[in-house]
Amino acid sequence: MNNKNSFMLRAIELSIESVDNNGGPFGCVIVKNNKIIAEGNNQVTNLNDPTAHAEIVAIRNACKSINDFNLKGTEIYTSCEPCPMCLSAIYWSHIDKIYYGNTRLEAANIGFDDNHIYEELNKDLSTRLIPMEQINKNDAIIAFENWELKIDKKEY
Amino acid sequence: MNNKNSFMLRAIELSIESVDNNGGPFGCVIVKNNKIIAEGNNQVTNLNDPTAHAEIVAIRNACKSINDFNLKGTEIYTSCEPCPMCLSAIYWSHIDKIYYGNTRLEAANIGFDDNHIYEELNKDLSTRLIPMEQINKNDAIIAFENWELKIDKKEY
Repeated sequence: MNNKNSFMLRAIELSIESVDNNGGPFGCVIVKNNKIIAEGNNQVTNLNDPTAHAEIVAIRNACKSINDFNLKGTEIYTSCEPCPMCLSAIYWSHIDKIYYGNTRLEAANIGFDDNHIYEELNKDLSTRLIPMEQINKNDAIIAFENWELKIDKKEY
Repeated sequence: MNNKNSFMLRAIELSIESVDNNGGPFGCVIVKNNKIIAEGNNQVTNLNDPTAHAEIVAIRNACKSINDFNLKGTEIYTSCEPCPMCLSAIYWSHIDKIYYGNTRLEAANIGFDDNHIYEELNKDLSTRLIPMEQINKNDAIIAFENWELKIDKKEY
């Protein structure tokens, strides 16, 4: 067994433990320089946090572990293909590569259907299931103008 | 000024404060029964957390505030159109409606380009900028089988 498989098996172990602990069946590890630097499992229902998917939990732990908001140079091993929230978080984190076990189709088969979220993201704002309305745009732009003028801003 | 505008102005106020405090120029409030139950602003760089966008911070705070992972019956006021991570989180949270100020185009103009993430989500897994590789699928499925068999599972 090579390291890739052993990292994934740890992610899978976390996903199985998660079911035992009444969380969703998802686990994840993040690896840097061939070492696990962070782990995560689904904690939506036990933490009352709809954003606490395994990947988000692992990303937050990894950033704490290396004290940086940029995870360039790391790889993520997740027991299931990421949902659009987690996939986007992986892009924001600049993780190098994604290994996954189950597919989103298999997740849909057991009731975790994020396909409809993938579809919603593609729709025009006016036709989405959750209605979206633009208001106060002349006020909102002020923060963007301030950001542009700021000299010592920290980009991410 | 009606309540809608006053809620959005509070979100905008948070976005302006965020710039002053060296965070990204984004703010957000969540409203239930015509009252703000949670606030958030971008804290990516000061918390070293790439997932700490204003909406995610506000969602986590709102769930803490009502002690539930389901935000049905709430509305979110965000100073800018949500990125795909935050939009997906809004779907997972079952928020009823989204009010936004700036558009994603305006965000791109000041260097926050999440359009490329929206595009990546649509691509076939094999052609994405961050490579994706499936491994250990026969092992990964075990957690899903356990989930199916579990009687007292808590769905979300």
